[in-house]
Amino acid sequence: MNVIADLSVVPIGVGVSVSRYVAACEKVLKEAGLTTRLHAYGTNIEGDWDKVFAAIKRCHEVVHEMGAPRISSTLRFGTRTDRSQTMDDKIRSVNEKA
Amino acid sequence: MNVIADLSVVPIGVGVSVSRYVAACEKVLKEAGLTTRLHAYGTNIEGDWDKVFAAIKRCHEVVHEMGAPRISSTLRFGTRTDRSQTMDDKIRSVNEKA
Amino acid sequence: MNVIADLSVVPIGVGVSVSRYVAACEKVLKEAGLTTRLHAYGTNIEGDWDKVFAAIKRCHEVVHEMGAPRISSTLRFGTRTDRSQTMDDKIRSVNEKA
Amino acid sequence: MNVIADLSVVPIGVGVSVSRYVAACEKVLKEAGLTTRLHAYGTNIEGDWDKVFAAIKRCHEVVHEMGAPRISSTLRFGTRTDRSQTMDDKIRSVNEKA
Repeated sequence: MNVIADLSVVPIGVGVSVSRYVAACEKVLKEAGLTTRLHAYGTNIEGDWDKVFAAIKRCHEVVHEMGAPRISSTLRFGTRTDRSQTMDDKIRSVNEKA
Repeated sequence: MNVIADLSVVPIGVGVSVSRYVAACEKVLKEAGLTTRLHAYGTNIEGDWDKVFAAIKRCHEVVHEMGAPRISSTLRFGTRTDRSQTMDDKIRSVNEKA
Repeated sequence: MNVIADLSVVPIGVGVSVSRYVAACEKVLKEAGLTTRLHAYGTNIEGDWDKVFAAIKRCHEVVHEMGAPRISSTLRFGTRTDRSQTMDDKIRSVNEKA
Repeated sequence: MNVIADLSVVPIGVGVSVSRYVAACEKVLKEAGLTTRLHAYGTNIEGDWDKVFAAIKRCHEVVHEMGAPRISSTLRFGTRTDRSQTMDDKIRSVNEKA
């Protein structure tokens, strides 16, 4: 099962600057071989369900190892069985109707 | 690693009434032995990371099997390493400050 | 236009314990005369669109005034034109199918 | 008060293809004079709090007018008082740590 997801990780208890932790999480997602795209409030991720969620778990582990005592993340995730669809397809589809 | 999560599952392409699918997902979470609490815009879930995410995957599979061609879910999920905390602890903590 | 929403407010830069800020936000929502219900990962809110969103804005203002330099919130919000529906209706609807 | 937000609008009860509605919402946001950036699971929005939330309301109204009887949206939104920050700043900040 393929999934398109959008992850936002918020480390708590490490001050106001959280970009160092977000960057580490980006690295984890890329090293997992997933297609990712960073935006201003999260990261788009595309891939096999198990690989995507294993990488998200690893991301939490790494951010804790870096010293964050608490993490609050949000995830949007979509699956479909009617047809396959990539992140690019989704954006193209909206732009065509614009 | 323990996680407290909050899941909202939105089946797309099956009309306006989605409660039948949400109820099926609730059943999956309970059968997985997880502590859950339904609210008006999702379900609180508490448990071991792998068990929680395996149940969420099963939930998507079941909702697709019921006929939903597309699902868009949102999840909040929090982990902490400084201390253990249950869903009840979180609510109590807020109410004490009220 | 009526809305059913679910708000989770995460103050950043004030340490790991955030319940004091969540409690203040609860107070703002109640003083706005909105029907609210606290759960382990947010608060259900029901009411007129403009009142709900004015209270959410006030909530951010109050949490900043309490000393939080940064806030990252998440909101689910649903509207419908086919019929009116309360938070209790939504829960009842799921439980009937269980 | 400035806000950086990330909006995902899911119309329910209009079939599996929702891009037409997302495109209409994009148009509303742009006509409101807001800086927006579409990604594969939502839209980044930056601007004055009141303008951003007025546009989000208009977006729900327009999607209902197009025939969607039900909408379930999710929003991430962040404010900060310690310094001003744009969407580009946020992305640059993560990339510098990569």
